[in-house]
Amino acid sequence: MSRVVALLTDFGLRDIYVGAMKAVILSICPDARIVDITHAVRRQNIREAAFDLLNSYQFFPAGTVFCVVVDPGVGSARHAIAVESQGYRFVGPDNGVLTYALARLGGDYAAVKLEEPRFWREAPSQTFHGRDIFAPVAAHLARSPRCFAQLGGALEDIVRLPAPELRFARNNLIGEVMRVDHFGNVITSIGRFHWASGATLELSDAWNRANPPLLIEAGQARVSIGAHELRGISRAYHEVERGELLAQIDSNGYLEIAANQGDAAGLLDVKAGDRVALRLP
Amino acid sequence: MSRVVALLTDFGLRDIYVGAMKAVILSICPDARIVDITHAVRRQNIREAAFDLLNSYQFFPAGTVFCVVVDPGVGSARHAIAVESQGYRFVGPDNGVLTYALARLGGDYAAVKLEEPRFWREAPSQTFHGRDIFAPVAAHLARSPRCFAQLGGALEDIVRLPAPELRFARNNLIGEVMRVDHFGNVITSIGRFHWASGATLELSDAWNRANPPLLIEAGQARVSIGAHELRGISRAYHEVERGELLAQIDSNGYLEIAANQGDAAGLLDVKAGDRVALRLP
Amino acid sequence: MSRVVALLTDFGLRDIYVGAMKAVILSICPDARIVDITHAVRRQNIREAAFDLLNSYQFFPAGTVFCVVVDPGVGSARHAIAVESQGYRFVGPDNGVLTYALARLGGDYAAVKLEEPRFWREAPSQTFHGRDIFAPVAAHLARSPRCFAQLGGALEDIVRLPAPELRFARNNLIGEVMRVDHFGNVITSIGRFHWASGATLELSDAWNRANPPLLIEAGQARVSIGAHELRGISRAYHEVERGELLAQIDSNGYLEIAANQGDAAGLLDVKAGDRVALRLP
Repeated sequence: MSRVVALLTDFGLRDIYVGAMKAVILSICPDARIVDITHAVRRQNIREAAFDLLNSYQFFPAGTVFCVVVDPGVGSARHAIAVESQGYRFVGPDNGVLTYALARLGGDYAAVKLEEPRFWREAPSQTFHGRDIFAPVAAHLARSPRCFAQLGGALEDIVRLPAPELRFARNNLIGEVMRVDHFGNVITSIGRFHWASGATLELSDAWNRANPPLLIEAGQARVSIGAHELRGISRAYHEVERGELLAQIDSNGYLEIAANQGDAAGLLDVKAGDRVALRLP
Repeated sequence: MSRVVALLTDFGLRDIYVGAMKAVILSICPDARIVDITHAVRRQNIREAAFDLLNSYQFFPAGTVFCVVVDPGVGSARHAIAVESQGYRFVGPDNGVLTYALARLGGDYAAVKLEEPRFWREAPSQTFHGRDIFAPVAAHLARSPRCFAQLGGALEDIVRLPAPELRFARNNLIGEVMRVDHFGNVITSIGRFHWASGATLELSDAWNRANPPLLIEAGQARVSIGAHELRGISRAYHEVERGELLAQIDSNGYLEIAANQGDAAGLLDVKAGDRVALRLP
Repeated sequence: MSRVVALLTDFGLRDIYVGAMKAVILSICPDARIVDITHAVRRQNIREAAFDLLNSYQFFPAGTVFCVVVDPGVGSARHAIAVESQGYRFVGPDNGVLTYALARLGGDYAAVKLEEPRFWREAPSQTFHGRDIFAPVAAHLARSPRCFAQLGGALEDIVRLPAPELRFARNNLIGEVMRVDHFGNVITSIGRFHWASGATLELSDAWNRANPPLLIEAGQARVSIGAHELRGISRAYHEVERGELLAQIDSNGYLEIAANQGDAAGLLDVKAGDRVALRLP
């Protein structure tokens, strides 16, 4: 039985907050394996956290408990919830942060409100539910998955975020910048692709199931971002010269604009939310 | 038996120093569970580390060994020590960094000097006792708590920091800013409070046992910081509009000045050491 | 049997990349102990990673698997390799990142190309071999060291970096700045020294075996860096006043320029690659 507890927060690593959560988890479930997904989600950015969870949850072993705390409404009337789907468990505020992962998991899930204080720390604070509610509940779930139904009453509907922008407009697939990473790579909402053949991309994302199958000739695609246009989809950084821009499919299937050993976001001067277009041939 | 080893340093995460300490710990105690409290204490800031330890140690399971290395005097004549109190064990330089946690634990403790090289790495360096003395001693304590008395001779008095500023002046409780956190929340030395009733705060801190019991009507309190005055103590961020300042009791019982989804320290232009006053009604 | 997997990358801690690698490792080897050496190697800086590995590997228990991913050539024709030497295992791109550690280990090693997809994640991406190839291979090696020979064909020669600059010029030992650490300490390529007696340093590094034995009177040595000259080698920070510069031997045996409780690199305005000279008496 996996006892992995994965943490995803906007708490940063400067303060003791993440350490306090881990302390609480190990007090309840001494053999938990705690993994940091990241704690550098931009403050209170629920959407960024949802995207980060989407792109990481599936690499964890079945049974992993995800404790996702990006929680601008802490202390307000928003629910605290636990959700089960396909053997994964999630704990966090009911603010949409689980939306994208649950959609990828197929949309079938069971959700409960966290209402039973016996699974929390005593006298929880109003400002740090990560330590006082979410971490202890995650630890109880890791120790004893069957406690799920005892955490509180079932919840039919949980809060959902709108999907990232991704739509057709004439001959273009229009998306947005989701993330600029540590290397300056620009990750977009246009995906998820896989290579259908050596030179053809196939759009495979669940978000697009409603749309007709889409095949793109990689060599003929054009990508527009800001004032720049890139021709063709590359298969690897080294297909262009050092420092030059390229478009490619990233490790999670999204269209990415990168620079070979360089900082594409700096060259392009783009940020999360900016528009990207993939012109179909 | 808990084998948790908690690390608190000012080493940062850019270098290999924290990794080297963990390597040493796992070489001696292969089943240690190592938890980072934080490594972002401001360089050589003993007081900040003492405050961080105070606010985190109690969430760890009994038996945890804390390896606290903020050590501007490394290589000088300062002692290296291990301390036991209420089932917790602490290892670090004798420079006061344990002061606040030991006071909260009631002031009863046993301390020894680290004098026995057989618990250290061979030929310890003069500049990195974290790796060569404190980490191995912490690992030995995690593996075998009974080795405590063999680490070296007993020490009657350990170095103490002065308490954070907290005093009455006429009708005011005067304190100082202890920490500005990742969110810009301003944590003060004024505390520790708990909510005695729906609208009343009670000062419950051990530091203030000498003073008469203090009850504050939350709605009538006034907080002065810099040129700002805040009226009333809120119970949660969302009681004010987004971006607005509020005073509240933080998750550790201290008076905190925050902004709902905003950066209070930026708005107030305050930093650690600045004065704060709580005017009693 | 140690199941330690140590990670050293340039991925930073902002993104989910390190978390995804850990997820993959725990999926294959659920009882792995994962240790971060650092993820803050400067982007694509193979040499810095090689130096970081050199200065950390030896503190880990025998049997540790090092997963070293600084990989500007990901997706190109560069090999992915695993190497065994003296009971340590290393996994990473064949770009020289293992050079310095393998030299310190004596130069005897066995290397294989990673060619067997059954030890990888299915359908590995072209951009994230850390997650799709190196992490799973490291996990398989941690779980079952005997799989080493099955990973792929033997490789005679692996890519090597040039050694850091270290040469005699008349009466000087000439080196370069290798690293500026979190404290502003300036770590040079001049080493590795140990204190041969109370007042004498001895150069003991394997890189310098070809040279005649070198003894330096610590008190008479002079260190030149930029426009500054420091006289004498100190034994500890506190031998100079607070904020003053000193030269000393760091915890790994290298000549280091530091400032007592200060930022030497800031005072000296130096950076990695700058020249340093140790004038012999």
